[in-house]
Amino acid sequence: MITNSVIEALLRRKSIRKYADRDPSDEVVETIARCGQQAPFAAQLGSLFLSRDRASNPFGAPLLFTVLIDVHRLERVMARRGWTRVTSDAAILVFGAQDAAYMAENMVVAAESLGLGSCFLGGAPFRAGAIADACGLPPHVFPLVQLAMGYPAEDPPPRPRYPISFSLFERRYPAMDDDAVDEAVRAMDEGYLAQDYYRAAGYMVPLDEGRKETFTFGDYSWTEHMGRKWGQWLTDPSETLDPLARCGFDLAPTADRPAK
Amino acid sequence: MITNSVIEALLRRKSIRKYADRDPSDEVVETIARCGQQAPFAAQLGSLFLSRDRASNPFGAPLLFTVLIDVHRLERVMARRGWTRVTSDAAILVFGAQDAAYMAENMVVAAESLGLGSCFLGGAPFRAGAIADACGLPPHVFPLVQLAMGYPAEDPPPRPRYPISFSLFERRYPAMDDDAVDEAVRAMDEGYLAQDYYRAAGYMVPLDEGRKETFTFGDYSWTEHMGRKWGQWLTDPSETLDPLARCGFDLAPTADRPAK
Repeated sequence: MITNSVIEALLRRKSIRKYADRDPSDEVVETIARCGQQAPFAAQLGSLFLSRDRASNPFGAPLLFTVLIDVHRLERVMARRGWTRVTSDAAILVFGAQDAAYMAENMVVAAESLGLGSCFLGGAPFRAGAIADACGLPPHVFPLVQLAMGYPAEDPPPRPRYPISFSLFERRYPAMDDDAVDEAVRAMDEGYLAQDYYRAAGYMVPLDEGRKETFTFGDYSWTEHMGRKWGQWLTDPSETLDPLARCGFDLAPTADRPAK
Repeated sequence: MITNSVIEALLRRKSIRKYADRDPSDEVVETIARCGQQAPFAAQLGSLFLSRDRASNPFGAPLLFTVLIDVHRLERVMARRGWTRVTSDAAILVFGAQDAAYMAENMVVAAESLGLGSCFLGGAPFRAGAIADACGLPPHVFPLVQLAMGYPAEDPPPRPRYPISFSLFERRYPAMDDDAVDEAVRAMDEGYLAQDYYRAAGYMVPLDEGRKETFTFGDYSWTEHMGRKWGQWLTDPSETLDPLARCGFDLAPTADRPAK
């Protein structure tokens, strides 16, 4: 591993869920937003909605950025040149999700370098309608994710990751035999247990009715947490497709589209 | 604007399309991949497929990372805990696209700090089947984007962005009247023209049959480029949905699904 100040910032970053009273200055906010803007893009499809209302922001964070896939703005720009978007909603979302995410990650890194912490909040897409109402979003704008930010009032360690051999492949995608999977499971579970992560959070994903709890904070760790989330939650595609439709994005194949 | 070495790296980054002969060392590759891994995640849904075959890599770059939304790996990990994924494909893709994109952007930033340049290649999702065949991808793995990387043999300036007032909103999403849009159009078009970007690239998006060319490299700039792409390309949703289906991701609402 090589290191420098940038790599140190990337490797030490972790989610912060407790924030100090100190408010970030306007200059800090603008610097972070500008770093977000400078991220690579397909069409500058990311934009930002900022709330500085601690009382309503998660964790009482001084800043809450809602990171938007903003196709409306592109359409306004195109209209000034006499163009109308014909790229399908499905395709523009593939690019828009990337533009918005690259922007968000640059902001996380810039914030880290300025001594601020951050936490991604992944629920925005599933309550996009309420967010659109609250922010006054026009059609073709979709909240991809929210980013709480502020000066940290906690200093947890960076969190474990899979072994690099389980993430970086060459020549052929690997067979992933049980031994390789178990090594990754072990790295994640032992890593989180060593940090007492879930005990400190005081949280286990509850089991659906009929499933019997057999874990304690002594053995509940990352892979069980993942199993419970993706083994129980968000099973109905409409939980994702309806908010997208509410924001004006239609993922149906052409043949299934209602005539306009 | 505040500055430091991290913010400088974020703000000076730009796409590189000419690469030097020098090969990045294994240590450089591993450092970049580790920085990618350490990005925030919902479920560590990003993984990487690396090609070091300059002869086949775009721009003859020494490195080409295909950034994967890797739900297969999650499913393998869950299976070792006795869980089966029930989260819909639509929902897991919302998280997976973010995990993979945060990973990719961290890699871009790490590379920049080590003196390497990079270029995103956005076409991967639309030829996912061919990529899946070439890399041996199992079902539930989708190539989101590709990232060419290496030591740069060119040094272009960072590229223009919208005015910050056109990207960062508070209280209400703005009305975006024609004046605000025109200011953004002007910033982007004058910025790219001042850098002679499209002339240097020797490229304008061709116009579909029936549209008459009225631009030269003297006035063809970013907003016209955007208009031609998103006003002509990828109009059929199947261009996006079919490759997703080929990789095992079904975005149809429940009622439309074929019985399994």
